[in-house]
Amino acid sequence: MAEFLIIGADAAGLSAALQIKRKKSRSDLKVLAKGRIISYGACGIPYVLSGDIASAGSLVHFTPESFREKADIPVETGREAVGLYPETHEVEVKDLDSGRVYREAYGRLLIATGAVPRRLPVLEYGQTGIFTLHTVEDLTAALAFIHETNPRRAAVIGAGNVGLELVEALHRRGMSLVVVDILAEAAANWPQLVRRAVLDKLREKRVDFRPGTAVESAERRGKEFVLKAGSGEIPADIIFSQAGTRPATDWCRDKLRTLPNGALLIDAACRTSKEDIFAAGDCASVFHKVLGAPAHIPLGSTANKLGRLAGINMAGGELEFPGVVGTQIFKFFELSLARTGLSSEDALRAGFEARAVSAKAKDKAGYFPGAADAEVEIVFEPGTGRLLGAAAVCSGNASQFIDPAAAAVTAGLMVRDLAWFDAAYAPPFAPVWNALVSAAFRAAGF
Amino acid sequence: MAEFLIIGADAAGLSAALQIKRKKSRSDLKVLAKGRIISYGACGIPYVLSGDIASAGSLVHFTPESFREKADIPVETGREAVGLYPETHEVEVKDLDSGRVYREAYGRLLIATGAVPRRLPVLEYGQTGIFTLHTVEDLTAALAFIHETNPRRAAVIGAGNVGLELVEALHRRGMSLVVVDILAEAAANWPQLVRRAVLDKLREKRVDFRPGTAVESAERRGKEFVLKAGSGEIPADIIFSQAGTRPATDWCRDKLRTLPNGALLIDAACRTSKEDIFAAGDCASVFHKVLGAPAHIPLGSTANKLGRLAGINMAGGELEFPGVVGTQIFKFFELSLARTGLSSEDALRAGFEARAVSAKAKDKAGYFPGAADAEVEIVFEPGTGRLLGAAAVCSGNASQFIDPAAAAVTAGLMVRDLAWFDAAYAPPFAPVWNALVSAAFRAAGF
Repeated sequence: MAEFLIIGADAAGLSAALQIKRKKSRSDLKVLAKGRIISYGACGIPYVLSGDIASAGSLVHFTPESFREKADIPVETGREAVGLYPETHEVEVKDLDSGRVYREAYGRLLIATGAVPRRLPVLEYGQTGIFTLHTVEDLTAALAFIHETNPRRAAVIGAGNVGLELVEALHRRGMSLVVVDILAEAAANWPQLVRRAVLDKLREKRVDFRPGTAVESAERRGKEFVLKAGSGEIPADIIFSQAGTRPATDWCRDKLRTLPNGALLIDAACRTSKEDIFAAGDCASVFHKVLGAPAHIPLGSTANKLGRLAGINMAGGELEFPGVVGTQIFKFFELSLARTGLSSEDALRAGFEARAVSAKAKDKAGYFPGAADAEVEIVFEPGTGRLLGAAAVCSGNASQFIDPAAAAVTAGLMVRDLAWFDAAYAPPFAPVWNALVSAAFRAAGF
Repeated sequence: MAEFLIIGADAAGLSAALQIKRKKSRSDLKVLAKGRIISYGACGIPYVLSGDIASAGSLVHFTPESFREKADIPVETGREAVGLYPETHEVEVKDLDSGRVYREAYGRLLIATGAVPRRLPVLEYGQTGIFTLHTVEDLTAALAFIHETNPRRAAVIGAGNVGLELVEALHRRGMSLVVVDILAEAAANWPQLVRRAVLDKLREKRVDFRPGTAVESAERRGKEFVLKAGSGEIPADIIFSQAGTRPATDWCRDKLRTLPNGALLIDAACRTSKEDIFAAGDCASVFHKVLGAPAHIPLGSTANKLGRLAGINMAGGELEFPGVVGTQIFKFFELSLARTGLSSEDALRAGFEARAVSAKAKDKAGYFPGAADAEVEIVFEPGTGRLLGAAAVCSGNASQFIDPAAAAVTAGLMVRDLAWFDAAYAPPFAPVWNALVSAAFRAAGF
């Protein structure tokens, strides 16, 4: 019986563990992890593949040993949660080494099992040469295969932002690329400004991108694969499947309230629908402040925050998470692409009246060396002038525009507030009218 | 008689002119300018001096001719306003070529005369080798002197942010430097985090900085100057006086309400205390949203905004400026230094209870190549948790931290809101916990 039991030893799980220890240093606290490698920056995986980061080991913050040493918290690895018994306050656990299944009792439980890659039924995962880059183990296996066989032609399935980061990495390794996605566009869930910039960049880099294309099969023919997708055959030396993720809640979702995709529904305090069971991170929902509803937006930043909050609350705190506003950013070749709040499509789907306006400006004073183009689109409610969201594309760091926009969305500011926004200005860092403020000025209709 | 008369042809004046023309294309509109060179980016001057920007001409957006061509608005140069007669709706103007003084009648007047450098009574300005870099003409004269005489030793009077930008420029030109300031610290009006970073950098660059030092005289001895300051003699080949600016309102301040320093008091619509007279830019006050009072914070970004707003209102609009929050940023060697809202000192002086906490973090994921240190300090009201201000120092672009902080201050957010703030996260652009959010987390005391 552990007073506090945490299932999962990544962003959410370990953040929670640290907070519980901070608040209740003498508590009986245990962390179970399925994998051997815990506490790693999964978002850095594409940059190890590209060679920007020298080794997969750089992504690992803690080993079970170093975590115990630092925090005095035991992490048992190779333990998979396979069943949940809220009535008796127990989790059924499988020891992956011995195969033994046993029950672990808890006082308070945190489910932080994260997400798992969505798998295409037609692909034979685990086959050499077919990879899903989700864990450090996946990455290590892919790198070993690459070093061994020196693949020249890669097929990537999935052109969401994670797939696109991978596309860049492989392109920079000199591979020729075919990218297929069942959706009609790359970065299909992103605002139009971002989608258009991604498409332009795919063309510029001569990536063979095939939207609206379903994968039918992947067949090994001698040393190569032949991917059948749409009406074509795609020969490839290596295949990456990056078709998104789903919450790793198969083992417990019948016992708890979930979103339709299986994400555990949590309240503002990270409590699930059953007493003494908390959840946080990629396996859980998160309240979306603009939609006013729970959503599933798996992100390392959110997992860290909600892990902290869950830990504090499990240890007796009473914090409430005010919600995310849907901020995201990714790199695609020379571009920094970001969003916050709702896109026009999101807004219309959610029943808002929405209008979008955009503006371009340099990211520094126009006369300053290295000044680069930036474009920002904002989405707002025409009636009230309320800012609903923004998207930004630039060759610098789009967080420069999207973080103030995110703060404005968080605070419920109006476009007229943002039009006169007192943004930082100095020639080496920002122009007099940055693209966010200019877009707001237009939206305000002054 | 001009329906709309604008005195001053820089950020505020020309922004207003363009808006008046946009709103009332057939209006009778005239702009008077004292100098021959109008519409230039004065903030870029240090970067021409350093050589980052190839020529002073790059700073000029419009000539009187190109402005007339683009906007169909006449700008008469060489015209100095020397008197104001609100009763008769007239400005007394001096034609600097002929010396003729005449009156120009207006329907509505905008005073946008900017600021002029503060001059030390003990210095003989205009003497070859003693410069104040305020205009493009000043810059051109200084560059000519530098090319002619190749000065190796520079003395800079004034270590505010503009003086410091100049120090960097001269240092990069290879000059040895002595910097004196009558105040006890460099960047004396900036938050402590910034002051400390500046001082460290001055030491690192081996700049001879003498705080608390009054200049007593500057004497020419053969080819060199000897600056007497404090108890020492400072030999120098060139002297720069950058002792701040004051509003260029000597010609009209007896007719209008002003701040003690002569800045014209304006309301939220940019109206002065006399009917049909508006003011905007460095010659005018600006409402400080956090202080809840007018202040004089001369900045190009504010001048552009209030110029626009004044122009729209002069043409019949009814816009109100919500106020600035005191955002500023500058570059000093490798550092980007920024502030918004109130510093601890500002806050205490203004009667707030204030506490400051700071946090350090990398500006990208820690494992990402090129990740650099960033430090953010936030100031808040301990009772309410209201965010009052922030300062940031980093080697990237501090606007990444200060603009979201500025938005949060604008919106009156609490530190607990900022602690859970949904900031952009991706390894190449931002860490999971950025320094702003971490500081807020500490401030929230969770």
